Amino acid sequence: MDLDTVLDQATGANAEFARHTPQQRYTQLVEIADRLDAAADELVPVAMEETHLPEPRLRGELARTTMQLRMFAEQARTGEFLDARIDDPDPDFGSGPRPNLRRMRVPIGVVLNFAASNFPFAFSVAGGDTASALAAGCPVIVKAHEGHPKLSELTARLVSAALTDTGAPAGAFHLIEGRDAGVDALRDDRVDAATFTGSVRGGLFLAGIAAERPRPIPFYGELGSINPVFVSQAAVDARGQAIAEGFVDSFTLGSGQFCTKPGIVFLPTGHGLEGVLTERIGGKRTGALLTDSITSGFADRLKEIGDQIGGRMLVEPTTVDGCHQPALLAIDYPTFVEHSDNVLTEAFGPFSIIVEYTDVKQLTDAADRLHGSLTITLHAEEADADALDDLRRLAETRTGRLILNEWPTGVSVTPAQHHGGPFPSTTSPLHTAVGTAAVERFLRPVAFQNYFDSWLPEPLQEANPWNIPQKRSPAGQSKLWGRS
Amino acid sequence: MDLDTVLDQATGANAEFARHTPQQRYTQLVEIADRLDAAADELVPVAMEETHLPEPRLRGELARTTMQLRMFAEQARTGEFLDARIDDPDPDFGSGPRPNLRRMRVPIGVVLNFAASNFPFAFSVAGGDTASALAAGCPVIVKAHEGHPKLSELTARLVSAALTDTGAPAGAFHLIEGRDAGVDALRDDRVDAATFTGSVRGGLFLAGIAAERPRPIPFYGELGSINPVFVSQAAVDARGQAIAEGFVDSFTLGSGQFCTKPGIVFLPTGHGLEGVLTERIGGKRTGALLTDSITSGFADRLKEIGDQIGGRMLVEPTTVDGCHQPALLAIDYPTFVEHSDNVLTEAFGPFSIIVEYTDVKQLTDAADRLHGSLTITLHAEEADADALDDLRRLAETRTGRLILNEWPTGVSVTPAQHHGGPFPSTTSPLHTAVGTAAVERFLRPVAFQNYFDSWLPEPLQEANPWNIPQKRSPAGQSKLWGRS
Repeated sequence: MDLDTVLDQATGANAEFARHTPQQRYTQLVEIADRLDAAADELVPVAMEETHLPEPRLRGELARTTMQLRMFAEQARTGEFLDARIDDPDPDFGSGPRPNLRRMRVPIGVVLNFAASNFPFAFSVAGGDTASALAAGCPVIVKAHEGHPKLSELTARLVSAALTDTGAPAGAFHLIEGRDAGVDALRDDRVDAATFTGSVRGGLFLAGIAAERPRPIPFYGELGSINPVFVSQAAVDARGQAIAEGFVDSFTLGSGQFCTKPGIVFLPTGHGLEGVLTERIGGKRTGALLTDSITSGFADRLKEIGDQIGGRMLVEPTTVDGCHQPALLAIDYPTFVEHSDNVLTEAFGPFSIIVEYTDVKQLTDAADRLHGSLTITLHAEEADADALDDLRRLAETRTGRLILNEWPTGVSVTPAQHHGGPFPSTTSPLHTAVGTAAVERFLRPVAFQNYFDSWLPEPLQEANPWNIPQKRSPAGQSKLWGRS
Repeated sequence: MDLDTVLDQATGANAEFARHTPQQRYTQLVEIADRLDAAADELVPVAMEETHLPEPRLRGELARTTMQLRMFAEQARTGEFLDARIDDPDPDFGSGPRPNLRRMRVPIGVVLNFAASNFPFAFSVAGGDTASALAAGCPVIVKAHEGHPKLSELTARLVSAALTDTGAPAGAFHLIEGRDAGVDALRDDRVDAATFTGSVRGGLFLAGIAAERPRPIPFYGELGSINPVFVSQAAVDARGQAIAEGFVDSFTLGSGQFCTKPGIVFLPTGHGLEGVLTERIGGKRTGALLTDSITSGFADRLKEIGDQIGGRMLVEPTTVDGCHQPALLAIDYPTFVEHSDNVLTEAFGPFSIIVEYTDVKQLTDAADRLHGSLTITLHAEEADADALDDLRRLAETRTGRLILNEWPTGVSVTPAQHHGGPFPSTTSPLHTAVGTAAVERFLRPVAFQNYFDSWLPEPLQEANPWNIPQKRSPAGQSKLWGRS
């Protein structure tokens, strides 16, 4: 199918898809999840072949992906994210008579998702962006990632069939392939919002297109993240070995190809953990990276770091059978300051940098140099509260998720999750790519003033036929405002 | 004070201001409202002199402005917009063990507001953008509108004093003047979000700067809006005279300088309302427009319409004492189709266009040509439901507020209000500039994982010391997802 037809079908699906009931959306999303689960034995081997990721990881990721679909199904069924609000008419309202005003969120329209390479299930064709956009009632066009084309097509067929068989309109879901098609679609007026997970450079390029179209549209890009970790002396004293092992496990997870990989760790000088770190790394064997371009990009980045920064390579970069093995660099704080632009640039692969600090004040100064990051992690004891107070406050301004005494890799898909953060970790710091709040990216409010009840959409009707949460503002409240 | 000092003070205020309690924010906002109310006799004459708007309108607008401040004060006190969420740990969570995860919204940082010309109180120095940003805990820099510099300075002094006397940090509020200062501030990395109310051209220029900065920031622009009105034959039959009079009152309100002015009205051919319309318009006398540039811009726009569109001028454009008087053009449907780009461009001032249609199908076709608009209004009878079904559905996709049998001018400041819409009516269709939801523009989520309770911000602490709404997700729920 050519791109023009895809876009026509998608816009053609808008009106009907937007009118589906919460129960219909629930059924559609659960059906997708069921079919993906049932096809696991077919999907996982293809994913292994195309991404070089190991089977247990991929089976786990698929399970997470279908759980996520079921979560959004449940969200859609409750109708909570419609955020239905009803203002009763109020002749005595503070700023003049208040009309019968009702507000809900409606689907934003056709959503274009640029799939990621590193999570071929959870951030790809049927991943969180697709699940949340479908839950919102938006037709979805996924631009397949070049790293796993066969898996993308296989997944897309299952998604399409599940949607068709549960009554979704023909244009509710499409897969497109190729960078040019993706860029052309993003430029097209028939697309109303877009998501992206990938590099800073790629994300900024696409964000520019979304902003410069004749009709600019929301662009939700999740770009690069360095995910700093700050370890206090007290934490090292209490459990240094566990921290060192946890760090190695985290930065090598998925061959270091997590957007939440800890890319820089601040340890007190004289931490004495070199032996634990090198031994733990020695026990890791990583396979091929996701794609050829990630493999060569990682090599280039290692060379750039080696050429420019100096420091002590605790574990030298090596390859085994052509595959990059985990490596670890240690630098002192002055070196970090001198090369902070370089150090704070993401290295996508199994590599991290230890910065050895001599004074807790350096942690605050370092935090002040940070760009926006998806996560910031602290390893500390409760008694560190005062010493780390400035660091903690500053860290809040630089990230979307703060983690204490755990590791940033692994992102729980829950109502309180926030997988986002200030630029450059995302292009939209108000929004999350993971968790129930992800659906908010694809909904826009519409208010209905003085409507006949029978003309209102179901969520705003007085009888509340869908039985969704309606938040009512009774008359008379404004009299209380500003009176203490 | 030079711009650099202003920006330094604003960023310097961030940390302290963000930590204020709901009660502190409440006190600050109410104090601003009280001082503005107390200064009404000083403020209103200056506003009259600078904007040429009449005294009753300005007194009403000031009352609305202080009511709005009290509403946001109340919002801040309840803490509802912090959206505090608590996920209990859940070892059996569907996608793997769920940690102790808590999420709230924090202030986005320094907010730069470009004030509007047409509401010197409600959309200016102490208007909705300022009130909602202060409620969120963001230091505010207002770029004064050139149309009312003295009023801006007077208002700013009152706001600053109220904030200082209620314990806000020194940089919590600043006024800056001049287009260059506004643009320089928008380009500066110390600014974290911006708002704007004004023309499409000005808004797009500023939106481009916000998007192209090294660190792009959210830009909430409210630009132009044509606010179409569709009138059914049944409505004309039932109450044609009242509709004609209501229309004239609405499009001439504030000398036609409302962002919600109805700029185009679809009436059935043979409506027979010419007499009522011209008589009602004859009873209106409008004074000078807000600024010289609006006055000349309106004259240019009238000329462009007269030269290109043709049609019957029901009331010819005239001036009295150099002031533009209300004018009204009628065209037929084919003329609308031929010149729709021109007709659908905003004319900011006391002018509107009637499009006479012959078939209800033309209304749907016309709606399909609409760009995004802040409002769309229908005048119809309940029996029109089926005939107008397509129009109603399509209208929902083109606007942020649908109004039935009332008029779009006058925007109630309430929880269910949505003053926004698809581009070009705004640059951010997810957000509103009016109503309690306006504060959401200035808040970004942060999740806290596995934190010591004593290290959490108050809204997320188990003891809930601020007594704000906390939404808790108990363990065990994921077992139910996707099971029908």
